[in-house]
Amino acid sequence: MSHPDEARLAIACSEAMHARDDAAQALGIELLESTPGRARLAMTVEPRMTNGHDVCHGGVLFTLADTAFAHACNNRNRITVAAAASIQFLAPGRVGERLVATAFERSRGKRTGVYDVEIHNPKGELIALFRGNAHQIRGQLVPDPESPEGDPSA
Amino acid sequence: MSHPDEARLAIACSEAMHARDDAAQALGIELLESTPGRARLAMTVEPRMTNGHDVCHGGVLFTLADTAFAHACNNRNRITVAAAASIQFLAPGRVGERLVATAFERSRGKRTGVYDVEIHNPKGELIALFRGNAHQIRGQLVPDPESPEGDPSA
Amino acid sequence: MSHPDEARLAIACSEAMHARDDAAQALGIELLESTPGRARLAMTVEPRMTNGHDVCHGGVLFTLADTAFAHACNNRNRITVAAAASIQFLAPGRVGERLVATAFERSRGKRTGVYDVEIHNPKGELIALFRGNAHQIRGQLVPDPESPEGDPSA
Amino acid sequence: MSHPDEARLAIACSEAMHARDDAAQALGIELLESTPGRARLAMTVEPRMTNGHDVCHGGVLFTLADTAFAHACNNRNRITVAAAASIQFLAPGRVGERLVATAFERSRGKRTGVYDVEIHNPKGELIALFRGNAHQIRGQLVPDPESPEGDPSA
Repeated sequence: MSHPDEARLAIACSEAMHARDDAAQALGIELLESTPGRARLAMTVEPRMTNGHDVCHGGVLFTLADTAFAHACNNRNRITVAAAASIQFLAPGRVGERLVATAFERSRGKRTGVYDVEIHNPKGELIALFRGNAHQIRGQLVPDPESPEGDPSA
Repeated sequence: MSHPDEARLAIACSEAMHARDDAAQALGIELLESTPGRARLAMTVEPRMTNGHDVCHGGVLFTLADTAFAHACNNRNRITVAAAASIQFLAPGRVGERLVATAFERSRGKRTGVYDVEIHNPKGELIALFRGNAHQIRGQLVPDPESPEGDPSA
Repeated sequence: MSHPDEARLAIACSEAMHARDDAAQALGIELLESTPGRARLAMTVEPRMTNGHDVCHGGVLFTLADTAFAHACNNRNRITVAAAASIQFLAPGRVGERLVATAFERSRGKRTGVYDVEIHNPKGELIALFRGNAHQIRGQLVPDPESPEGDPSA
Repeated sequence: MSHPDEARLAIACSEAMHARDDAAQALGIELLESTPGRARLAMTVEPRMTNGHDVCHGGVLFTLADTAFAHACNNRNRITVAAAASIQFLAPGRVGERLVATAFERSRGKRTGVYDVEIHNPKGELIALFRGNAHQIRGQLVPDPESPEGDPSA
């Protein structure tokens, strides 16, 4: 359970980031939930997202997971970027399926963090596992009077 | 140096796959070169491909690399899918940059293979490193009288 | 909850494998638990396991995790080998600490599987995250009248 | 080609680190070469290094690669630790084989770096591919009058 202010800040960060995330918007990715260190997003597979084997392109699945990761690691209002990520493709995503990606923090150090993302299909089957390494850089997503940018250790 | 028939087959496979790869087409990914176990593709970063931090979305970089990987592991005319992949983000991709992804085979077993992909920007800087694990399944991309589908061990 | 026969088989497989695992024995790795698709092993960090920075060598932590992974993916009595693995080092292992590695199956296909391993220190802190890709090959660890080697599809 | 002073410093760092690396010493790992951002080490597979399938334990192969990685990322005399690593197992290591691990820098930022390691067997076959993410922390391996510890930005 996060503090009410942190919960509000997480939503504010995610909404600001989502509004500017043109690549996620282009795929129709929806922001379902954002709490400190966690996020849940959804995307419906469309024909334009398929690859040469007629299933959802691995890059599109990765984009969904990577976007959920970005929300989970940025929603404490510290600009954080991906340093590396890996994905396991367990089952194909099919056209018409609404996929849900759930991201959560596994570890957080002073400047780095490890996040896991799981993608499930509408039957509740796990179709992809993602793990990302995040690296905090300077800057904030939204103005925050409680911990201004000048004090990144806050 | 590959055999002329293998070289022709690689191009035929890649062209067939690229024509059906709607996700790659949607990003304007271009097929530059395909030889057995290798491929080179390009993509120009557009504003619609950026993330909330105003650089190329990690998922779009991954999609470019993953597509190059798919060509390198499918262009011997055996349908091959990604089992897993990892990516290292070394530097951002900027709007207007034409990025080039080069994929090459590091190892190939009976049914599995490991492929590396490097993405460079127009200055020749390495901006991402990708490594993929491929798994051959049943089927061919294009009709091949030399080794019909019925003999997958060929 | 696994079937009593499967539970017995898991223990038999793990005991047979552990007895032959000279590298694990050399590190004093203990088998704590083995159930189908899961395993728990422990190891106490000794001075001879440290690296040039005086903490447990990353390779030794990996060996503990990899051993737990091997038990989780072999204890259904199908010889299974690691194709790939990744590890995140979250905190150092210190001399004298008894580390516990817990492995569990995330996905299992016909011949392949994905397994996660977590290593905790005595304070209950997560110090490493491991993810492995397994590949089943031909053969059994212990004689099994129920599904003899001649029928690997069983 | 590195500057003579940097070349000497790389060897001094590697020798100091190797002397203290008890885990590497216990496996008989030999330091063959260390130049800035690169290193080459060897290890002969012994029966005590095998796993339950009678080939070199994956953890021992990882330890060899991880040690080569540590030399490549520490030999500029900045204490650097592994944040994450992945390994692809391509072919088994056999008892009696002298394996050679070659590590090289793929990318180096202000505090982070990406390193690749390849392990070859005596026939020149590539048996494992490793990729590691390094993170520089405070401190030096050997006293260095040119850039004392007080100025880590040097």
